[in-house]
Amino acid sequence: MDISGIFPPIPTPFNKEEEIDYVKLKENVQKWNEIPFKGYVVQGSNGEFAYMDPDERVKLVEKVREFAPKEKLIIAGAACEGTNQTINMAQKMASVGADSVLVATPCFYKSGMTKEALEMHYIKVADSCPVPVILYSVPANTGIDLPEEVIVNLSKHPNIIGLKDSGGNITKIGSVIHRTLKGRFQVLAGSASFLYASLSLGAVGGVCALANVLGREVCKLAELHKMGEHEKAKELQHQLILPNTAVTARHGIAGLKTAMEMFGYYGGPTRSPLLPLKQDQIDDVKHIFEPFL
Amino acid sequence: MDISGIFPPIPTPFNKEEEIDYVKLKENVQKWNEIPFKGYVVQGSNGEFAYMDPDERVKLVEKVREFAPKEKLIIAGAACEGTNQTINMAQKMASVGADSVLVATPCFYKSGMTKEALEMHYIKVADSCPVPVILYSVPANTGIDLPEEVIVNLSKHPNIIGLKDSGGNITKIGSVIHRTLKGRFQVLAGSASFLYASLSLGAVGGVCALANVLGREVCKLAELHKMGEHEKAKELQHQLILPNTAVTARHGIAGLKTAMEMFGYYGGPTRSPLLPLKQDQIDDVKHIFEPFL
Amino acid sequence: MDISGIFPPIPTPFNKEEEIDYVKLKENVQKWNEIPFKGYVVQGSNGEFAYMDPDERVKLVEKVREFAPKEKLIIAGAACEGTNQTINMAQKMASVGADSVLVATPCFYKSGMTKEALEMHYIKVADSCPVPVILYSVPANTGIDLPEEVIVNLSKHPNIIGLKDSGGNITKIGSVIHRTLKGRFQVLAGSASFLYASLSLGAVGGVCALANVLGREVCKLAELHKMGEHEKAKELQHQLILPNTAVTARHGIAGLKTAMEMFGYYGGPTRSPLLPLKQDQIDDVKHIFEPFL
Amino acid sequence: MDISGIFPPIPTPFNKEEEIDYVKLKENVQKWNEIPFKGYVVQGSNGEFAYMDPDERVKLVEKVREFAPKEKLIIAGAACEGTNQTINMAQKMASVGADSVLVATPCFYKSGMTKEALEMHYIKVADSCPVPVILYSVPANTGIDLPEEVIVNLSKHPNIIGLKDSGGNITKIGSVIHRTLKGRFQVLAGSASFLYASLSLGAVGGVCALANVLGREVCKLAELHKMGEHEKAKELQHQLILPNTAVTARHGIAGLKTAMEMFGYYGGPTRSPLLPLKQDQIDDVKHIFEPFL
Repeated sequence: MDISGIFPPIPTPFNKEEEIDYVKLKENVQKWNEIPFKGYVVQGSNGEFAYMDPDERVKLVEKVREFAPKEKLIIAGAACEGTNQTINMAQKMASVGADSVLVATPCFYKSGMTKEALEMHYIKVADSCPVPVILYSVPANTGIDLPEEVIVNLSKHPNIIGLKDSGGNITKIGSVIHRTLKGRFQVLAGSASFLYASLSLGAVGGVCALANVLGREVCKLAELHKMGEHEKAKELQHQLILPNTAVTARHGIAGLKTAMEMFGYYGGPTRSPLLPLKQDQIDDVKHIFEPFL
Repeated sequence: MDISGIFPPIPTPFNKEEEIDYVKLKENVQKWNEIPFKGYVVQGSNGEFAYMDPDERVKLVEKVREFAPKEKLIIAGAACEGTNQTINMAQKMASVGADSVLVATPCFYKSGMTKEALEMHYIKVADSCPVPVILYSVPANTGIDLPEEVIVNLSKHPNIIGLKDSGGNITKIGSVIHRTLKGRFQVLAGSASFLYASLSLGAVGGVCALANVLGREVCKLAELHKMGEHEKAKELQHQLILPNTAVTARHGIAGLKTAMEMFGYYGGPTRSPLLPLKQDQIDDVKHIFEPFL
Repeated sequence: MDISGIFPPIPTPFNKEEEIDYVKLKENVQKWNEIPFKGYVVQGSNGEFAYMDPDERVKLVEKVREFAPKEKLIIAGAACEGTNQTINMAQKMASVGADSVLVATPCFYKSGMTKEALEMHYIKVADSCPVPVILYSVPANTGIDLPEEVIVNLSKHPNIIGLKDSGGNITKIGSVIHRTLKGRFQVLAGSASFLYASLSLGAVGGVCALANVLGREVCKLAELHKMGEHEKAKELQHQLILPNTAVTARHGIAGLKTAMEMFGYYGGPTRSPLLPLKQDQIDDVKHIFEPFL
Repeated sequence: MDISGIFPPIPTPFNKEEEIDYVKLKENVQKWNEIPFKGYVVQGSNGEFAYMDPDERVKLVEKVREFAPKEKLIIAGAACEGTNQTINMAQKMASVGADSVLVATPCFYKSGMTKEALEMHYIKVADSCPVPVILYSVPANTGIDLPEEVIVNLSKHPNIIGLKDSGGNITKIGSVIHRTLKGRFQVLAGSASFLYASLSLGAVGGVCALANVLGREVCKLAELHKMGEHEKAKELQHQLILPNTAVTARHGIAGLKTAMEMFGYYGGPTRSPLLPLKQDQIDDVKHIFEPFL
């Protein structure tokens, strides 16, 4: 499976009662369908998967599969803390049409998440999963940076096809690409902030929160790199760092949803305990994204 | 509700298929019933709650309530990532007999877990919970240390009665006790390693993994403090640090279950991705606990 | 050498040109001499030793030795990054009258500061030092927490007599005391915030920034513990946490100097790059210390 | 001053007594002179500056200036903890021929190193320094990552010409380049591990420990980037990550000196408390560098 390209990790639209609004979801997906994305990541961190019940998680994947054309890949976030829970979730997501599952590291019992425990977890999941597995390291949320050695070992598993790296350590990203089989194991940058640097080192694409808002610009950055337009790619990358930061580290998912509304998408509230932005934060988002309107 | 005293945060007994073994649970609880514990913490971190399905979590509480005499308090770990999920879980646990619920901080979206977000989360949970709520700060697992300011503010909520602090920052523990209403807001040390220091500063008891193994010794430490036998308390505290470390930071839940088997309890396996101890780790646990046999 | 008791880690008085003012130093020391301190720590972290030239550091020790009566112990902070530098500094400080030297962990090459490297460093220093050596762990400044194993090993060296622990991990403090020879190896709490807890576990005293301001109160806390007045000790400890935080973590050395001026000592400026407090910070210090005037 | 290009941060050669061996230094510099380096960084972190007396630091700069041809820039590491100390050091280094000074962040009083304190420190140093100042962020050693806002503000100072960034956060590196004046403020990658990614984002060169060993290869990487040979640059970058890691994070300065000896340079011992490599570590270095012999 070729996962090269750009994937927005789509947020989940809620109404004021914090219930999923599938109509809004459909409208958002239809709008995204016009952008040259490779596909969608559903129920990644930006999808607030941590606040979803298992049934909701599966139904969301089913619905996005329904709303997206067949050629768009659906990568479903299947992470649970337990290994068996993760296997069940991955199987269900595959059964409703996910082309691949993205599995973040378990993280609650941090001291127990040794290299060996992480490796065994992924092997068991990959062994039982009907679709290919993508590893997912997102230390800002989990407190765990999937070790390079574990990634290299797991890259040899026939059902593990890649890594989404949201840690952004460019040395590690380069080293992983160098040490894994070219064409077999595919690395996706987990953020638009280090997308161009990752592509320069051999990453095949990116899963970028910013692509939910500025999808065309993020796709263009990947395209410029592909065409060898390095000077233009560098300039565009420079311009995307601040807006990307605004919808990730700086203002989180509420910031992402606020920015989406500026560009005609439905944003809506987050689920509690995440809070809505305050007025000065909203103003900051607006100020940062205005040049792109 | 008076929560002064010692509570073991009981582990969940699994069989080889990683399924809950309620017969073994009953045997363990019956054995613990003979020790002067104030009650039990069910589905705390040591209960592997992160690997349980919601139904399992509730049923475990129901069963322990059934196996324990009425005078033992049942404190149920009700933490989920989402606020509504937590409210649902707390209500269900109360409905099956939990006397109080223990709510660990949500932690996945770390940058979103501001003081305000944490405070709102606990207020909503406490407002909707039919039994008293105990705050729970366990940074080794969550990466989040519930801020002192938030604790002090929440201590005024009529349905929030205390804090289990597993961070072990004795300065913070002392300051929280000083700044909250004596007799109203009760602090429990989250580990036997700093139990005596916490009691010295005004904590009312402890939730101590070690109490699952050396319940009488941990209760004796609290009793010595109560009776003003400070020299003896100090000596006993000294002796308990190493065994406590062995069943927490050093060997985790698998270490705890290994030690329990030395003392006639059922330990059994952990759920995956947690791994069983290796032989040298088993030997280390045995070496450390032998003097207490 | 018996180091049980309270030691203020005295700050260095500077004039507006950031030069050392020995007249003010003398006045401060004379005022402190009336308090039942065991002695003084000169050129600890609060002494801004990092901003002193080697000659200044030695002269300060010489002067405090001159201004203090013979029965007060002078413990001189002799830490340098290099082992040979530290040996030279320790020897010079001994030659001008230091009774003991306090040696913070080297810290610049963090990845090189392995257990073995730290142990060898202290052994070399202790072997060459004409006066007893006290280990010093201050992770808030150094980023290095001297490992328990290293402390236990070093406690057997005939010229290493104790530890000043400013990390405040009460479990580690208790464990170190338990594992080292009683009466031989002496532990000092590095802060008034965890002084009573440390004493309860067997520490012999404290080196407390707060003692520069509220010397009598800190000495009284140690005295209450000694006399077995645990309830009163607890109450006093509670009252001292906030003022102690104000002159350490919250407002640093500039906060300490500001508070000293409220109580008739000379505070004066810090050396650059440390900045003076802003007005709202000064107000905060005043508000916190007013009840003690 | 144009600082584009590659600079080895040269280590200091010691004899068995840990004294500086100027003969070996001369031999090393003469060998490096034949490589197309832009110049040398003397007394950076790899120069063990933390273990040098002030006079040694200045003399080393003087000697390297003497041994290097005029067209090679000498950048001298002038960092001290105190502002006045740093000013004195910078002035002395300029007086013996340093073309520029590199100033690492002060770091001992971490909580006092606010944005404002760091900014004031650099302004005072830059105001008083007769040669241009280069900012230096090296969080692995200092525990302090010079904040982007501070860098952007300081980039407007007429005597501050650039930044050596050893943190390796490629998002920050890109953002700093985007937000500072092109052609005026120059960013150097602080490690060969992220050199190509940094160049791709607009960095002008690198200060790379690995250049002490594989100088031609590191220079070639920069050259390939300059010529737009991105595929070849990527491949070479991949090959240099592991050897670079071996002489930095993995085996530190002792690893660097060991590798240097494989390539005909004098390595020699480090100063204590840094320890020499053990045999298995030496073997690891040899194994990693053999392909480059």
